[in-house]
Amino acid sequence: MRNTFYSYIEKLQDQISSKLEKVDGKATFQEDLWQRKEGGGGRTRIIENGTIFEKGGVNISKVFGELPEVLRKQFGVEEGDFFACGLSLVLHPINPFVPTVHANWRYFEMYNSSGDIVNQWFGGGQDLTPYYLFDQDAIHFHTICKTACDKHHKVFYPKFKELCDTYFWNTHRNEARGIGGLFFDYLKETEEFTIQDRFNFVKEIGDSFLDSYIPIVEKRKEIQFTKHQKEWQEVRRGRYVEFNLVHDKGTLFGLKTNGRIESILMSLPPIVKWKYNYLPEENSQEEILLKVLANPQKWII
Amino acid sequence: MRNTFYSYIEKLQDQISSKLEKVDGKATFQEDLWQRKEGGGGRTRIIENGTIFEKGGVNISKVFGELPEVLRKQFGVEEGDFFACGLSLVLHPINPFVPTVHANWRYFEMYNSSGDIVNQWFGGGQDLTPYYLFDQDAIHFHTICKTACDKHHKVFYPKFKELCDTYFWNTHRNEARGIGGLFFDYLKETEEFTIQDRFNFVKEIGDSFLDSYIPIVEKRKEIQFTKHQKEWQEVRRGRYVEFNLVHDKGTLFGLKTNGRIESILMSLPPIVKWKYNYLPEENSQEEILLKVLANPQKWII
Repeated sequence: MRNTFYSYIEKLQDQISSKLEKVDGKATFQEDLWQRKEGGGGRTRIIENGTIFEKGGVNISKVFGELPEVLRKQFGVEEGDFFACGLSLVLHPINPFVPTVHANWRYFEMYNSSGDIVNQWFGGGQDLTPYYLFDQDAIHFHTICKTACDKHHKVFYPKFKELCDTYFWNTHRNEARGIGGLFFDYLKETEEFTIQDRFNFVKEIGDSFLDSYIPIVEKRKEIQFTKHQKEWQEVRRGRYVEFNLVHDKGTLFGLKTNGRIESILMSLPPIVKWKYNYLPEENSQEEILLKVLANPQKWII
Repeated sequence: MRNTFYSYIEKLQDQISSKLEKVDGKATFQEDLWQRKEGGGGRTRIIENGTIFEKGGVNISKVFGELPEVLRKQFGVEEGDFFACGLSLVLHPINPFVPTVHANWRYFEMYNSSGDIVNQWFGGGQDLTPYYLFDQDAIHFHTICKTACDKHHKVFYPKFKELCDTYFWNTHRNEARGIGGLFFDYLKETEEFTIQDRFNFVKEIGDSFLDSYIPIVEKRKEIQFTKHQKEWQEVRRGRYVEFNLVHDKGTLFGLKTNGRIESILMSLPPIVKWKYNYLPEENSQEEILLKVLANPQKWII
């Protein structure tokens, strides 16, 4: 399964980065291959200063070897080897009417001293962070998520949608990072699902990504925006930074286990502003967004 | 002592903010008074868009009541009341040749169920974060710190200077946040020092702050800078954000105990850039700074 999934994310990285280059029309991905001293490495692909994408990354990596101490503690095991691989992407568009998007799909294996797999699971998800809210974009994004989920189990969409709202919550601001999507973790083999079923599900979600996001980009990329709207985006990007550096487990895990910093922090936006006590005008589009972020919605039934 | 120290930081806030307004010559501090539901509150003073200071804050607060859970865990006590107060300041100048400065001086009391003080201590310090390094500025800043320390004990400066280098260390980047200063905590009553001695020491340090920083501002504020130098400052400010949101105990404590978010996050710079794998040119001024940050110096003997 580790080879199957890694081959899949290699192809998916190619497919997504080549499509994003076409959509952007100007910028191309810069590729950096890196090695992890303790085992593994990755293929980082970064896009900057495009016509559509101000900054973004579509990265894959696999790491393996002895379980780092932080993972031994987390899983309550005294020793053992592990293997983990995944694709992570974040795109920060120039135009404040085009939302930021994040996705991550990953696979994990743990071994006993004989090298047998003692545990294996998938995790991941994708979520959208708009700066101006178009209900129909949120509905489109969630519809693609739900359609992909429904092919595997009726309970997946409502469950993973709720987990997403819970996970991407900026507790110190009492608001969601964005309008959600899917979040799932520890998808293991059960009586109901084989590990192959789990792979098929994650593949379905990964394959649906471009359909969930690109139509929104195409629809909003030409909208004229003012300096004020750009500034609103830059201030809101500050909340994105706050979430990723204070709360996001993936980012903190990477930072605390000597991951490749520049690959992990590709998620941070290119230009960010922090203004003291910056509040939108009453009944403005900006305030409407904040109200929705404070009260995550059901976008589809 | 709680009243003595709070009166002191009230006056110090006035003294520092009024001097900073004079130095800036254009911007004035915006004052916000706030209350803490569980007991206490603060006086936040923010300066923005000045001729010298792009953004900054000089805040005081006192909080008291039942020990929040996170503090009960930290101190290993099951119950009890506490009182804490302090002054925190951060100044982000426009000109990349003027360093960012941070200072914090605080006092803490813990009580038993009869309301007697069972523990009390001072903490704090100040540190400088340049974007371009002038050795003589670092030497000036450290000399003022040392002179103030030496009036109280010969060991204070070397000890608190080293603690500062250790504390303001961006572990995930393997570099210091800046060129240091002082950091001290848990300054309690001992055989050698009464709590009044501790107060006298912290007051000495607080009183020396303007002398440590303002001469550097005056000396560097007129230096012409290029777009490239401004951008270097904005990229380096990203490291400041990373430290404050990932590592700084004060910030995380505030965020996790429902402090007033806008007062806590006044420390974040006004405009920040994250560029992928941004490296300075060889032998440039920018590279010289990085080398010093990777290897904290002894600025004075």
